[in-house]
Amino acid sequence: MYRVDLNCDMGESFGIYSFGQDEELMKYITSANIACGFHAGDPLTMRKTVKLALNYNVAIGAHPSLPDKHGFGRRKMDISAEEIYGLVLYQVGALQAFAVAEGSKLQHVKPHGALYHMANESTAIAEAIAEAAFRIDPDIYLVGQSNSKLVKAGARAGLRTLNEVFADRNYEKDGTLTPRSHEQAMIVQSKYSSERMIRMVKEHKVESRTGEDIQMRADTICVHGDSPDALQHVIQLSEALGGAGIKISHPSTFEVEV
Amino acid sequence: MYRVDLNCDMGESFGIYSFGQDEELMKYITSANIACGFHAGDPLTMRKTVKLALNYNVAIGAHPSLPDKHGFGRRKMDISAEEIYGLVLYQVGALQAFAVAEGSKLQHVKPHGALYHMANESTAIAEAIAEAAFRIDPDIYLVGQSNSKLVKAGARAGLRTLNEVFADRNYEKDGTLTPRSHEQAMIVQSKYSSERMIRMVKEHKVESRTGEDIQMRADTICVHGDSPDALQHVIQLSEALGGAGIKISHPSTFEVEV
Amino acid sequence: MYRVDLNCDMGESFGIYSFGQDEELMKYITSANIACGFHAGDPLTMRKTVKLALNYNVAIGAHPSLPDKHGFGRRKMDISAEEIYGLVLYQVGALQAFAVAEGSKLQHVKPHGALYHMANESTAIAEAIAEAAFRIDPDIYLVGQSNSKLVKAGARAGLRTLNEVFADRNYEKDGTLTPRSHEQAMIVQSKYSSERMIRMVKEHKVESRTGEDIQMRADTICVHGDSPDALQHVIQLSEALGGAGIKISHPSTFEVEV
Amino acid sequence: MYRVDLNCDMGESFGIYSFGQDEELMKYITSANIACGFHAGDPLTMRKTVKLALNYNVAIGAHPSLPDKHGFGRRKMDISAEEIYGLVLYQVGALQAFAVAEGSKLQHVKPHGALYHMANESTAIAEAIAEAAFRIDPDIYLVGQSNSKLVKAGARAGLRTLNEVFADRNYEKDGTLTPRSHEQAMIVQSKYSSERMIRMVKEHKVESRTGEDIQMRADTICVHGDSPDALQHVIQLSEALGGAGIKISHPSTFEVEV
Repeated sequence: MYRVDLNCDMGESFGIYSFGQDEELMKYITSANIACGFHAGDPLTMRKTVKLALNYNVAIGAHPSLPDKHGFGRRKMDISAEEIYGLVLYQVGALQAFAVAEGSKLQHVKPHGALYHMANESTAIAEAIAEAAFRIDPDIYLVGQSNSKLVKAGARAGLRTLNEVFADRNYEKDGTLTPRSHEQAMIVQSKYSSERMIRMVKEHKVESRTGEDIQMRADTICVHGDSPDALQHVIQLSEALGGAGIKISHPSTFEVEV
Repeated sequence: MYRVDLNCDMGESFGIYSFGQDEELMKYITSANIACGFHAGDPLTMRKTVKLALNYNVAIGAHPSLPDKHGFGRRKMDISAEEIYGLVLYQVGALQAFAVAEGSKLQHVKPHGALYHMANESTAIAEAIAEAAFRIDPDIYLVGQSNSKLVKAGARAGLRTLNEVFADRNYEKDGTLTPRSHEQAMIVQSKYSSERMIRMVKEHKVESRTGEDIQMRADTICVHGDSPDALQHVIQLSEALGGAGIKISHPSTFEVEV
Repeated sequence: MYRVDLNCDMGESFGIYSFGQDEELMKYITSANIACGFHAGDPLTMRKTVKLALNYNVAIGAHPSLPDKHGFGRRKMDISAEEIYGLVLYQVGALQAFAVAEGSKLQHVKPHGALYHMANESTAIAEAIAEAAFRIDPDIYLVGQSNSKLVKAGARAGLRTLNEVFADRNYEKDGTLTPRSHEQAMIVQSKYSSERMIRMVKEHKVESRTGEDIQMRADTICVHGDSPDALQHVIQLSEALGGAGIKISHPSTFEVEV
Repeated sequence: MYRVDLNCDMGESFGIYSFGQDEELMKYITSANIACGFHAGDPLTMRKTVKLALNYNVAIGAHPSLPDKHGFGRRKMDISAEEIYGLVLYQVGALQAFAVAEGSKLQHVKPHGALYHMANESTAIAEAIAEAAFRIDPDIYLVGQSNSKLVKAGARAGLRTLNEVFADRNYEKDGTLTPRSHEQAMIVQSKYSSERMIRMVKEHKVESRTGEDIQMRADTICVHGDSPDALQHVIQLSEALGGAGIKISHPSTFEVEV
């Protein structure tokens, strides 16, 4: 049976500022990437989001970021791999405490925003993230862009990894995402985009922006929560996956395939 | 055999700012209260301090604080017990990650500065701290001022607690510290102050500022690291304790007495 | 002719977090209290809000706060009057730069949240705020709760002051606000609450919660911007004031009365 | 008569953390670059440093930075020119308030650390800084690396500019600083380094690392304050300049030469 995980960024409110529609989306996803206070979130938001995920049987993951709440973790910084190791360890540990406090534990680590992209570009940073995740828990999953430096660093470190794909993005021939500056970067969520996802899950293939078939493994699909029609898109994608015989489920259930 | 723990605040450097004389003091203490990034410290300082403590066989403890680096965690804030629970869980979890990453784990939690004092004054805050500590690890020790609301809340929560005393402070008849504003608040570190400590450890008694003998149990003595003669004071105290047949040792070794 | 100023908190968005409905409200108010980055706001939000105010001919004021974005400046802190002086000077100076950059200057200073309340309770803090405001610009207005320590400290410092009242709050016999914890603290915005405002402006009187007439001078009325029906309330109040022959206008226009 | 300004970074303490030896150095310099709270400093440190500079007749300048206290403003960030404009305006305005509060005003603006280097590499960022400085005060000086994009952007914006040189650094043939990673980046402070400074001031020339004479105008010499022998270096340089008939003086005194 085909299986795939659906992950979504969660817990991105901060203080009085509310963000996203976490509870609605929890009904449809299997993994939550929870902000750890560096780009968004705060202790009580982390606590609330962990409890919410547990209520909906959604696996809890840490979403560590560069230290930049003002820029929502989206601005790259010239920061050493050693610092990254420390920042990730700090944030994942903080969230782990909230999971443990509720009788649970973290399933995965997925870097956020600029850190996610830096980990795709720098082996040293990818390795720093992987090492931090491994040292907290060698059984934790590391989520990175499909076939990226991060996923490879995770495997080398001895971690189980999840190759992540994006339903709303185009891919270049070399497997990288078409840059957002390109006019064809985005793919409108639709029957077409869902079919791309289905093919990635079943055949590990996708058509690149320029028309070539490329390898693209999809263990987990990233679902966005911050657009007005986010919920509708998730429902549509879920139904398409189900209709194609793909079960949306936690990574732990597809262990045997790996 | 009489035993007592010596604890000291550590890891209070931040970025380029250096503070304290951690390495020198590690040679004489048994427990380190490590800053968790809210009043001082940062991820790499936490990592370095954890490793340093392990090198010197010093037990690692979390020193969570109010969120106030500018004020070094010394300014009281009007903050709910629920927020305190979250802040403590967050910081202790973050430091736990650094301990786990080095193959160790936390021995204790001791609130810092204003939070320490707030926990002596408010049962709700004391309970919030105790609950956070318990939920992270029911085997962790909670350190609080001797006979304080915090120590009592820790015991009620099911935690092992450590009654902390101060070699350089006077006590009132009711067992509270003489306020710093009082001219007799401080006791110059000397043969006299060491003898007070010895009596607290052996007899659980001390003479109050106004001359009465009061109950004062000393499981752990707080040693200050930020004065020029801090090192000399620690050495002097250590020698006095040793001369009186009191062994300076980790709390785990005096389990049987409790 | 009777005149009154309408002031509203503005510029409380932060980074990706949006807050309030500034542009809609600008049409009805005469003074904007702009967040200075300590409880809310950031440089680009400050710039945008200053420009917006100028577009709508709304006077620009600084809304300095305790340093607490997480708590939105609503949590009291045990902070010295000297620190308050520095914090206020810093924030007012920062906003002044944005006003000057757009060819304008600040009309007023009004402390935010917990700092506003601390300035009503502590003469030392009230004086620190007044001194900071005066040193930046002796022609600036200082806004404080009607008849408060802050307004009096401003007058002693040589500043022009604005006595502020609240349309949605009850008053005690001694002129203080009925605490929010009291069940009769709030007054539903209505024809009744508008009539109270009209009487304050025309007669400098209001009926206290317990039925006595008390002195209550209203130079400026605080309008809230963060509730769903904020806009409707402002419109309703504006119409009621207009119907009673009270002109909503900048403080500079009622100089002669003072 | 030949003249040159000596500038030094100041006010880089933060909270309980002390940094540098400001008071000693104030006796020898003519311009102080005062931290504005983003990489270092805080309101009371700003106040104290402004007063100290005035006591020693040292001109006050703002030293704005990227928002990164943890990294002391030394880590480049991927941040838009528009954000830079806002950050600079904010910080310069904040410091201006402290200068005005003491009856003075800012003489200059000099970006700190990573922002200084970004302004040498990006015209858009250089222009954003220049525009912010100009809008606060068209009479303010803008300090940048000699012949850099920043100095040029300042001149285009209508500002007076100060070309800054470094006594302890080597220069490449194209006038840029030899990167710190190069083994010949640094020049030991000595008779030789002082002679280089004298030649820059008198002839606007210096020998590059590879032996060519290049144009290098020196309006102001940057003096470092954070090394143990900083004070000795400043004294040595001052004496050498004096001995060569170069008067160390405020930029306002060499107006006529420009």
